[in-house]
Amino acid sequence: MDNWETWLAGGLRILLITIIAVVVRFVVRRALTRLIARLNREDKDGKRRALRGGRLVNAERRRQRSEAIGSVLRSTASVAILGTAALMVLSQLGIQLGPLVASAGIIGVAIGFGARNLVTDVLSGMFMLLEDQYGVGDTIDAGEVTGVVLEIGLRVTTLRGEDGAIWYVRNGEIKRVGNLSQGWATAAVEVAVAPESDFATVRKLIATAGEEMSASAPWDEQLWEPVEVLGLESVSLESMVLKVKVKTPPNQAAPVERELRWRIKRALDAAGITQVDPPAVSLEKGD
Amino acid sequence: MDNWETWLAGGLRILLITIIAVVVRFVVRRALTRLIARLNREDKDGKRRALRGGRLVNAERRRQRSEAIGSVLRSTASVAILGTAALMVLSQLGIQLGPLVASAGIIGVAIGFGARNLVTDVLSGMFMLLEDQYGVGDTIDAGEVTGVVLEIGLRVTTLRGEDGAIWYVRNGEIKRVGNLSQGWATAAVEVAVAPESDFATVRKLIATAGEEMSASAPWDEQLWEPVEVLGLESVSLESMVLKVKVKTPPNQAAPVERELRWRIKRALDAAGITQVDPPAVSLEKGD
Amino acid sequence: MDNWETWLAGGLRILLITIIAVVVRFVVRRALTRLIARLNREDKDGKRRALRGGRLVNAERRRQRSEAIGSVLRSTASVAILGTAALMVLSQLGIQLGPLVASAGIIGVAIGFGARNLVTDVLSGMFMLLEDQYGVGDTIDAGEVTGVVLEIGLRVTTLRGEDGAIWYVRNGEIKRVGNLSQGWATAAVEVAVAPESDFATVRKLIATAGEEMSASAPWDEQLWEPVEVLGLESVSLESMVLKVKVKTPPNQAAPVERELRWRIKRALDAAGITQVDPPAVSLEKGD
Amino acid sequence: MDNWETWLAGGLRILLITIIAVVVRFVVRRALTRLIARLNREDKDGKRRALRGGRLVNAERRRQRSEAIGSVLRSTASVAILGTAALMVLSQLGIQLGPLVASAGIIGVAIGFGARNLVTDVLSGMFMLLEDQYGVGDTIDAGEVTGVVLEIGLRVTTLRGEDGAIWYVRNGEIKRVGNLSQGWATAAVEVAVAPESDFATVRKLIATAGEEMSASAPWDEQLWEPVEVLGLESVSLESMVLKVKVKTPPNQAAPVERELRWRIKRALDAAGITQVDPPAVSLEKGD
Amino acid sequence: MDNWETWLAGGLRILLITIIAVVVRFVVRRALTRLIARLNREDKDGKRRALRGGRLVNAERRRQRSEAIGSVLRSTASVAILGTAALMVLSQLGIQLGPLVASAGIIGVAIGFGARNLVTDVLSGMFMLLEDQYGVGDTIDAGEVTGVVLEIGLRVTTLRGEDGAIWYVRNGEIKRVGNLSQGWATAAVEVAVAPESDFATVRKLIATAGEEMSASAPWDEQLWEPVEVLGLESVSLESMVLKVKVKTPPNQAAPVERELRWRIKRALDAAGITQVDPPAVSLEKGD
Amino acid sequence: MDNWETWLAGGLRILLITIIAVVVRFVVRRALTRLIARLNREDKDGKRRALRGGRLVNAERRRQRSEAIGSVLRSTASVAILGTAALMVLSQLGIQLGPLVASAGIIGVAIGFGARNLVTDVLSGMFMLLEDQYGVGDTIDAGEVTGVVLEIGLRVTTLRGEDGAIWYVRNGEIKRVGNLSQGWATAAVEVAVAPESDFATVRKLIATAGEEMSASAPWDEQLWEPVEVLGLESVSLESMVLKVKVKTPPNQAAPVERELRWRIKRALDAAGITQVDPPAVSLEKGD
Amino acid sequence: MDNWETWLAGGLRILLITIIAVVVRFVVRRALTRLIARLNREDKDGKRRALRGGRLVNAERRRQRSEAIGSVLRSTASVAILGTAALMVLSQLGIQLGPLVASAGIIGVAIGFGARNLVTDVLSGMFMLLEDQYGVGDTIDAGEVTGVVLEIGLRVTTLRGEDGAIWYVRNGEIKRVGNLSQGWATAAVEVAVAPESDFATVRKLIATAGEEMSASAPWDEQLWEPVEVLGLESVSLESMVLKVKVKTPPNQAAPVERELRWRIKRALDAAGITQVDPPAVSLEKGD
Repeated sequence: MDNWETWLAGGLRILLITIIAVVVRFVVRRALTRLIARLNREDKDGKRRALRGGRLVNAERRRQRSEAIGSVLRSTASVAILGTAALMVLSQLGIQLGPLVASAGIIGVAIGFGARNLVTDVLSGMFMLLEDQYGVGDTIDAGEVTGVVLEIGLRVTTLRGEDGAIWYVRNGEIKRVGNLSQGWATAAVEVAVAPESDFATVRKLIATAGEEMSASAPWDEQLWEPVEVLGLESVSLESMVLKVKVKTPPNQAAPVERELRWRIKRALDAAGITQVDPPAVSLEKGD
Repeated sequence: MDNWETWLAGGLRILLITIIAVVVRFVVRRALTRLIARLNREDKDGKRRALRGGRLVNAERRRQRSEAIGSVLRSTASVAILGTAALMVLSQLGIQLGPLVASAGIIGVAIGFGARNLVTDVLSGMFMLLEDQYGVGDTIDAGEVTGVVLEIGLRVTTLRGEDGAIWYVRNGEIKRVGNLSQGWATAAVEVAVAPESDFATVRKLIATAGEEMSASAPWDEQLWEPVEVLGLESVSLESMVLKVKVKTPPNQAAPVERELRWRIKRALDAAGITQVDPPAVSLEKGD
Repeated sequence: MDNWETWLAGGLRILLITIIAVVVRFVVRRALTRLIARLNREDKDGKRRALRGGRLVNAERRRQRSEAIGSVLRSTASVAILGTAALMVLSQLGIQLGPLVASAGIIGVAIGFGARNLVTDVLSGMFMLLEDQYGVGDTIDAGEVTGVVLEIGLRVTTLRGEDGAIWYVRNGEIKRVGNLSQGWATAAVEVAVAPESDFATVRKLIATAGEEMSASAPWDEQLWEPVEVLGLESVSLESMVLKVKVKTPPNQAAPVERELRWRIKRALDAAGITQVDPPAVSLEKGD
Repeated sequence: MDNWETWLAGGLRILLITIIAVVVRFVVRRALTRLIARLNREDKDGKRRALRGGRLVNAERRRQRSEAIGSVLRSTASVAILGTAALMVLSQLGIQLGPLVASAGIIGVAIGFGARNLVTDVLSGMFMLLEDQYGVGDTIDAGEVTGVVLEIGLRVTTLRGEDGAIWYVRNGEIKRVGNLSQGWATAAVEVAVAPESDFATVRKLIATAGEEMSASAPWDEQLWEPVEVLGLESVSLESMVLKVKVKTPPNQAAPVERELRWRIKRALDAAGITQVDPPAVSLEKGD
Repeated sequence: MDNWETWLAGGLRILLITIIAVVVRFVVRRALTRLIARLNREDKDGKRRALRGGRLVNAERRRQRSEAIGSVLRSTASVAILGTAALMVLSQLGIQLGPLVASAGIIGVAIGFGARNLVTDVLSGMFMLLEDQYGVGDTIDAGEVTGVVLEIGLRVTTLRGEDGAIWYVRNGEIKRVGNLSQGWATAAVEVAVAPESDFATVRKLIATAGEEMSASAPWDEQLWEPVEVLGLESVSLESMVLKVKVKTPPNQAAPVERELRWRIKRALDAAGITQVDPPAVSLEKGD
Repeated sequence: MDNWETWLAGGLRILLITIIAVVVRFVVRRALTRLIARLNREDKDGKRRALRGGRLVNAERRRQRSEAIGSVLRSTASVAILGTAALMVLSQLGIQLGPLVASAGIIGVAIGFGARNLVTDVLSGMFMLLEDQYGVGDTIDAGEVTGVVLEIGLRVTTLRGEDGAIWYVRNGEIKRVGNLSQGWATAAVEVAVAPESDFATVRKLIATAGEEMSASAPWDEQLWEPVEVLGLESVSLESMVLKVKVKTPPNQAAPVERELRWRIKRALDAAGITQVDPPAVSLEKGD
Repeated sequence: MDNWETWLAGGLRILLITIIAVVVRFVVRRALTRLIARLNREDKDGKRRALRGGRLVNAERRRQRSEAIGSVLRSTASVAILGTAALMVLSQLGIQLGPLVASAGIIGVAIGFGARNLVTDVLSGMFMLLEDQYGVGDTIDAGEVTGVVLEIGLRVTTLRGEDGAIWYVRNGEIKRVGNLSQGWATAAVEVAVAPESDFATVRKLIATAGEEMSASAPWDEQLWEPVEVLGLESVSLESMVLKVKVKTPPNQAAPVERELRWRIKRALDAAGITQVDPPAVSLEKGD
């Protein structure tokens, strides 16, 4: 009778374990689903993107990706919860799980030390995706490499560098990312003229050149604000340096700088003002 | 009868566990609420902010944020306390929790190694928020990137860099922060003249130029103190360098420097004093 | 009778352990096989490779390698699962496994600290192979060394450097890889002429030289796009710098640059335009 | 009867636990109080401060701070000791604490990895306060930032940098601190004259200029020792460099250097000795 | 009788432990022997070495070394397996091994932290030997030191540096190794001539000088390929730079460069073409 | 009776624990006392100090310090041993110590991670004191800071830097220390003369100047060896550099160099030999 | 009777523990003795030393040191083994060792984190001694410091730097050591002459100067090989650089270079060949 009672109690416990496992699994999965959904909903509003001037093209692709991550997380949770419950049932049946737990622990620690980078990479990748820091096609500055994003994986991000080579960067190694396709870019040109030149004339010539540029196609779309002459960057025996700045669309700073440089040169040449060498090292901080 | 007693003792223990859990949960939650409240109250006085010359605009937004953090902390504490109590009840019911604890431990350690950065990021973010080191709209120097804060998240801070690109910086990577929108900025101009120029004249010319500048709009609001001529920075065969310094509002150093440079040049030109090249490398420490 | 029952229960438990071990082993091995297969299948489509402009020569070799990795993983899993089951059976037979587990744990931790690099290297190597970041014969930039891949091992990658020496690089030390044989390369030449030269003429002469080059063998195959004159990089008293750019096949940038430089020199010489020294340090950012 | 005895023994043990806990708590709290008191008493003597030339203004503020730290430490100790005793009583009542201990351990380790920086910061801050390395208002060199201390917190130290920006530096990141407001500062000026100048004359002229300076207000308070002409720093075809040094109050080196430079220039000009460029890089070590 | 049965079961268990230990030891030792043998066999084919142009002199020495490693590994495995079995037998005899396991664990962890470098060094050394990255007599670039290998130990590699000093480098500190005695070396000479020189003539003169050199002893054996004139490296007002390259045996690049430089100088002098200074910094990337 | 026996055995065990604890405590304390004594005795011989040319002034102060360390170590050992014994007695009384051990462990690990730096600092400080690497008043090079030691604490070393500021350096951050007050210093002067100057004459002039200097007070005590003319450091079109070296007391190199430079200049001027600029960068290694 | 049997079994177990402990201690001590002896014997052959050209003076001193290390290791092993056995006996007597093991573990881990550097230092020192990388009196390059070894301790190595200061370097911070007193040194002189000078003549003059030097005392013992003229290092408009190299005893490179430079200058001057400035930066790699 004692025996029978023991068996009964054992059976009840196994039942209890099973019920709790099923409930916990259900709760955890739903929580994960909601978390992903909320992250997506937040994004639907597009507030953040708008704030950062980003493109909305990636919305659908991103939704799919976050679904995929959600699915992976849900499967992982199911395996962990049901596996643990199975072990608890075995334990209830009187099977000694010591060796199992011990070998799992040893493997876990052994791998844990070496795989630290791997887990870091994957966690970083997951957050990068969910936070939507950059999308395929964006130009990013990932610290060691700058280029166009070809593919965002959980472990590595693939970029095409400026010279055309393909770069594979581990996500965990990316400590800060600059998304050069969001926001705007700044074209800046320094103009060095002789110190005896008339400052006001030079300023006006440059301003006029800038206005003409922003009036003529295709540059009218490349200049998001009027060209601004910032003022005197440095003065020395042989030169006086002015800085000119203008806001451009992302990735358009270099061509705008070249055109602007060319137009300023033409304007100054026409007015008989020669550009000179800037001082070797500017001793004063510019903006 | 022995059986009956065992069951009774078991029941009493379960009751005891439940009561203690509820009490502990209540105490912990109230402690968290008070901690957050005290952090907010301290801030209401605005002492620290005033000390640092910060803006008070963020007060309400910050209160909301700290409420949110408090809510997250309270939920986490509830889950941890009640979950532990549930496990203790199960244990009291005779269910062997060894496998559960073991698998939780293995997962915990395995993730722990890889997620270290994640926890560090979140903890850093939490403290940054509570300590109110910077707010949205402040210009900060975060070590690797300098720019205007767009968003302060628990894991990453989003900045718009000086050239317009968007930067995502992990909070844990920010070892020290310089808030360039609190306090003031310093505009400094070095003026190199021939060593045979009369020092007193040059000094007076510069001082006059500075006074005129601080008298004329819009510069009167940009100069928080009179322009100060610091003295002789270096002397060599071909040059004698004076340093000029003035306190400006945050982020206004560059335009003030340019204007000041221009006014000094005009004043010296009018007096027939030519500015020369400063020495390539100044051998002596300036301020 | 009590004894007999104990033995029976023990036997049943051992049977149960055996069955579960066999089932788990079967499931795990099949999961591994499928994982590898899916990774291969994805690759068969060649999407990624096409995207990155890679060569398809390595396909078969790569399939073999991933089979080999799969085989290693399957064996490891079998050993781990069956070994654990054996220990559990021993434990069920009443043998005390404490010392075994303890000495395994001590060895594991002791080695774990020191072998961390080893595990990191092997895991990195495994992922590099599965992700097909580069193949034998590709020229890669592995951070500290750049060269042609001779052999991809689990622990080290062997390269032949540009000067012919053989380099052994541990996989875990490769934080980002640039595959210079995928994608394209960019040949860029800077042309410095006197600032009084006619900009339009110089531009046209360079453009013509570029067109002639892309028309004549063997350069027609080396220039993947028309030669592009980007514009004015910098202007100073003594020079005006233009930048010329053209897309070439991987690893062909240097010879194309030399030829292009030579053709531009010839064209400018013929037109009586002399190339001058570029400014010592260009103060402005180019592309 | 066996039962009754068990209960009695249990009760006695609980009593014993309670008594020991109360005693230990009393002893630990008194030890902490004494430790803090001793640290304060040591400071009252002001020996260390005097040795370092520090200000005594902070004494009261510091006493308050160390009281506060003591109070925090005492509370923490009470919670830890009484909490542990409560758990031991529960354990004595037959409640299984395994799950509690396990979940506490998991949370502890999980946080421990991520919060390492936090604990390091707080411990560093605590020692900085107790060791009184610097006080509010001191100018310190904290490695990455130099400025005036605005606030010393347990986790971060707030500084106002030289340019006026506010800096938040984590205490654990401060590996060495230089307190520029304790001790003194050294003003050093290098004077380069033509190598054919008479060394003795130059030396005397400089010495006289230094004496005059230390005789005239306000400089008499800024020069803590007579101006010292150290001798010949370097000799070359075009220059001969002398070094002049003088001890000044903390933070007064720069203005003293400027004034001294100016007075030496005037003296040399009056004697018809021209200052020349120092050699680009001095090949020999100075002091 | 119960007693007798217990003793019998105990004896059987001890027997079982002994048998399993012997079997496991046999299997592990054979596996180690085969692993070493396979590593050697792979090498016998000499494929890898041939691929890398290595010397086969080290084959026998290397076989001995790997035998030695195998012997060490087999002894270690035996000690570990038999020691564990002995502990299990003691445990079966009723001796409490807790203290033993605990003190072993404490010593293990304590040493483990400090000896991490040691284990890393030895593991790295073991793999370097088995992978045959370099042999005694090879010239290697070990990152911090470059020199001829004198001795390859498990913990340190001993090198004779280029200047003759003896260097001891810990194996674990060697992150990548360049074997300069495998493969080949590249001799490269840059020739700067006046920009008005005839490019074709210069090219031909250099080519002829290269051909003559490769025809005359002892240089015929030092040039593994014809001397190649790569083309125009840079063009400026005062110079035009050509690059010449040739493949040489390992470690022969420097003498070949010197001879080639001398022959080119002679040829250009004979043709009345003067070599000029190359530009201070070449702005364009060469190969 | 069974009960009575149990109680007796328990009492005997408690007695045994007490005896062992007292004995162990006695042995450990005596061992610590002897260790400290031996370290002091070794120092009394002053061998090491003599070898290093150190001062013996610190002997008494150092003995006191090592006594203090010994006292701290003895107290720590007593607390640890008696505390452990007390816990064992409690455990013998049937009190369950699980929660105590667990909470101690959690606190230990939690602090351990964060306090690592603290323990490292204190251990480093202890060894620095016992090894007597430097004393109060010595000038040391502590890596990041160089200055005179004001105070040697267990956690930080306080220095007065060369410019007078006070530095606090954590002992664990000091990886190597250079004691500039032990041993000697080397004054080195480079003399650049025209290459057509007569080498022997210059050499003799310099040697004579050196001899005169070492004959005249106060320099006779500052030069520990005759001034040595090392020979020709470099030869170029415009200069020929000789190096002169002399051994001086610690911290006296700079004044000796200045005086020597001045005497050499006077001697060469008298002989009509002009010193010239040394070459910008010496291409050859000197001593 | 049951009681009596239990006591008997306990006694037998204690006896068994004692015997095993004594045996293990004997075996371990003998193994340590043999290991040390083998390390010494290997050294007696002096093979390694001969190979590296080292001095044999240190042999006896080294034998003593390794004996001392052996003695320390043997004592440590005895304490560990006998202590563990004592604990096992206590455990067998029914004393609960849980608290002891736990507090030992906590102290161990707590110290372990902080003392990691200490253990690393001591282990590195032990291996440096056993591997005989350098002896007292050798000049070594220890990475951060170069100097003559004064003392080799287990934790720190004491050096006298080149300028006479005493340096204390922690052994664990020494990642690679260059022993400049083993092997040889290389004296290298670069000779820059006008490019129109006759190469063969210059070469012959230098070679003759080298021969004369190696024929005259005391230089005949300082030149271990004939002076070798390596050839043309670079060619430019104004200079042609030859490199001269010769093998010297350790630490003799600098005086040999100076003498050689002087003799070459004399020889060239006599032949009317002027040495010129070498090019600012040599663009080509030398040996």
